[in-house]
Amino acid sequence: MISDIVYAELSSVLEGRLTRSKSELDQHGLSETWFPLTPPEAVAYPESTEEVVALMKLCHAHEIPVTGFGAGTSLEGQTLAVQGGIVVDFSRMNRVLRINDADMDAVVQPGITREALNVELRATGLMFPVDPGANASLGGMAMTRASGTTAVKYGTMKENVIGLEVVLADGTVIHTGSRARKSAAGYDLTSLFVGSEGTLGLITEMTVQLHGQPEAISAAVCSFDEIGPAVEAVIATIQVGLPMARIEFLDAASVDAVNRYSGANFPLKPHLFVEFHGSEGAVAEQVEMFGEIIHDFGGSDFEWASKAEDRNALWTMRHHAYWACLALKTGSKAVVTDICVPISKLADAVEQTRADIAASPLDGPILGHVGDGNFHAILLVDPDNETEIKEAKRLAHLMAERALALGGTITGEHGIGMGKKGLMAEEHGDGWAVMGQIKAAMDPKNILNPGKLVP
Amino acid sequence: MISDIVYAELSSVLEGRLTRSKSELDQHGLSETWFPLTPPEAVAYPESTEEVVALMKLCHAHEIPVTGFGAGTSLEGQTLAVQGGIVVDFSRMNRVLRINDADMDAVVQPGITREALNVELRATGLMFPVDPGANASLGGMAMTRASGTTAVKYGTMKENVIGLEVVLADGTVIHTGSRARKSAAGYDLTSLFVGSEGTLGLITEMTVQLHGQPEAISAAVCSFDEIGPAVEAVIATIQVGLPMARIEFLDAASVDAVNRYSGANFPLKPHLFVEFHGSEGAVAEQVEMFGEIIHDFGGSDFEWASKAEDRNALWTMRHHAYWACLALKTGSKAVVTDICVPISKLADAVEQTRADIAASPLDGPILGHVGDGNFHAILLVDPDNETEIKEAKRLAHLMAERALALGGTITGEHGIGMGKKGLMAEEHGDGWAVMGQIKAAMDPKNILNPGKLVP
Repeated sequence: MISDIVYAELSSVLEGRLTRSKSELDQHGLSETWFPLTPPEAVAYPESTEEVVALMKLCHAHEIPVTGFGAGTSLEGQTLAVQGGIVVDFSRMNRVLRINDADMDAVVQPGITREALNVELRATGLMFPVDPGANASLGGMAMTRASGTTAVKYGTMKENVIGLEVVLADGTVIHTGSRARKSAAGYDLTSLFVGSEGTLGLITEMTVQLHGQPEAISAAVCSFDEIGPAVEAVIATIQVGLPMARIEFLDAASVDAVNRYSGANFPLKPHLFVEFHGSEGAVAEQVEMFGEIIHDFGGSDFEWASKAEDRNALWTMRHHAYWACLALKTGSKAVVTDICVPISKLADAVEQTRADIAASPLDGPILGHVGDGNFHAILLVDPDNETEIKEAKRLAHLMAERALALGGTITGEHGIGMGKKGLMAEEHGDGWAVMGQIKAAMDPKNILNPGKLVP
Repeated sequence: MISDIVYAELSSVLEGRLTRSKSELDQHGLSETWFPLTPPEAVAYPESTEEVVALMKLCHAHEIPVTGFGAGTSLEGQTLAVQGGIVVDFSRMNRVLRINDADMDAVVQPGITREALNVELRATGLMFPVDPGANASLGGMAMTRASGTTAVKYGTMKENVIGLEVVLADGTVIHTGSRARKSAAGYDLTSLFVGSEGTLGLITEMTVQLHGQPEAISAAVCSFDEIGPAVEAVIATIQVGLPMARIEFLDAASVDAVNRYSGANFPLKPHLFVEFHGSEGAVAEQVEMFGEIIHDFGGSDFEWASKAEDRNALWTMRHHAYWACLALKTGSKAVVTDICVPISKLADAVEQTRADIAASPLDGPILGHVGDGNFHAILLVDPDNETEIKEAKRLAHLMAERALALGGTITGEHGIGMGKKGLMAEEHGDGWAVMGQIKAAMDPKNILNPGKLVP
């Protein structure tokens, strides 16, 4: 519990930008998925690294839990202050500090969203491609090692964060990485913080890799009669080394949801949404090769979206698919699964998952970033119905076990938070204990996002 | 000191594959660079993970230092047992355990060399591209986060190691990563071990990313009158996004060394050695675009090596450049530098380094993987001449400080070992202390490669 005296101290270092108004606490106690409302004791809005340092020093002295908050779009309860304390909302630290055109990198504050960054980059010919769908903050994306539709070409946050400024548990500030393209100078602390979900420190500044805006873009949609050939076509495309920028799978149930929510009119069959980036010549070549592969696997003719507004409409539909699925069942919440398997196992994993869900009373559209071997079932539950939540968790557990049995992982991009902690020992064995050792060494008082990720 | 009783115990778990013969100790006490002979107390040759586990448990119990050894090609003294104890030579753990064609990955033991792996891959159409020049072991390459000539296209060991089996200080075995293309399941332990130089654990198995052998390859050499335009041409090539597979810079002194050592006849001017990989059409397009850029910067006409044997001869010359430089001065050893800077700063960094060396009594050819912003000066010293070693270290320190001032790193690919420990605080500040905390948590007895990398 934060005493009134400590609250006043904390408020003073933030020049009053600390609140315990019920509406703000509730707003920061929500999650996008099925977790119950978990309001923190206070919400802080720092505006500088110095303020985060002052805040952390006080919280360290008083052993107050600190949980970072970006845009609140995480799916495994990462931002919920399950042990009370303070949520640090980075929405006021949302500036682009520097854009280095020549080296194609940018230094940004963690609260900036990916869409806002790309608006600022528009005139430079550069872009930040990592696209988890939600308009997440870059700090949050780094902390969950997010990826999304474009990782198949541009990589995940692991590949696109090249340096960090981090405030540690005791208020010490460190800088990881450099602006060089590679380094062999000691432990890769940047990679350690990326994916650490706020349990090792708070990001206050980050250097991200930018990419050139492609000269040419082509997007298309095609359908298949069955799941198997759709996924096999993806596998074949990857194996011939065709460089797709995006390749998304939606099963018939997802397509139905998208049609209803976005007013589209796709046939109720499994679909692939694809996009190619490159020079005019390269994209034309890729489109032709892809067309041949799709044809071999019995896919429909493409509908190509050559105009920018048509492509935007297509990807907006894809990005809204999560809410489209929720809208299938009034008042529902989702237990979202997120397995990732080796490409060669993808068809097996998707088809077995489809069969499990078909045999269950729950609805669960399947969709995902199949170019990475990553897909989700959106298991729809009434959040007040224990039986449904239990059944959804059973299905989610089945999927995770299958992913591990196939040499994959329990989460491709959503992270662990609270939702997947129960599976960490199964995936990592004694490696999970090593994560615990690192956590204990770097945050011995366990004040940074306690209750998440580590044992 | 290892007592005779402990020695017998250790020998017994290795079925006799432990030695203290002087010749073996001396052979494992050498380094490729200027460090004095540092023989360990014993050399072990395990043949399985189980043997490494048994060895580590005994060494843990008796607090005996353990230093891993692959091919002995590291350049910063990483394999030298500076606090005595055992060197674990992985040359008998050198098998390919599995090749997964469909997923383009392979599971190998750490002692296999990159050339041996590529021989085994030849018939699969796949390759392991990371190429540090020396025929290093994959375990050693992982531990130094090696890269080399092809990183500009295929990435470094950071990008190409996707999973590890590691024996920790107390003999616990963990498995990091998975065979999925991405994961958000907790701390990225794979990335923590890659680059850790044997200070956190011993790799006993590794899963590496493979790549398709390119359909077409074109290599070429061109010269420039001055360093500046040669490097500016590289920067321009990168900035237009031309995907080179290799782009190497050699200054006139390096070219002279290569001519003498390999019987070549290049003009004594700065050179670029380049290579493009891709489809026939893509390579032709890239070659043409590159030709235009080179022309704009006043480069000579290319000499293209279109035949495989000509290309092999070219890259063999490049790979032998280090020994070619050593041969310039009879009996010399090298203090090898390895800075990496943001691409936009590369011309400044190379030209200022050239000027520093020109003003010094030492010879120091400059060459490097300029597509990454990474280059080396091979500072030639008489290993018995204190004054020369001191002068070489002064120059190396100047280069490292310059790299940091330009936003770069003190080492792009050689790692820290003993040679660069003195610069870690300057590069990482309090981040170096964090590395020390992690080391202390994972190896509290400090038996894993003590004296290297961490404070």
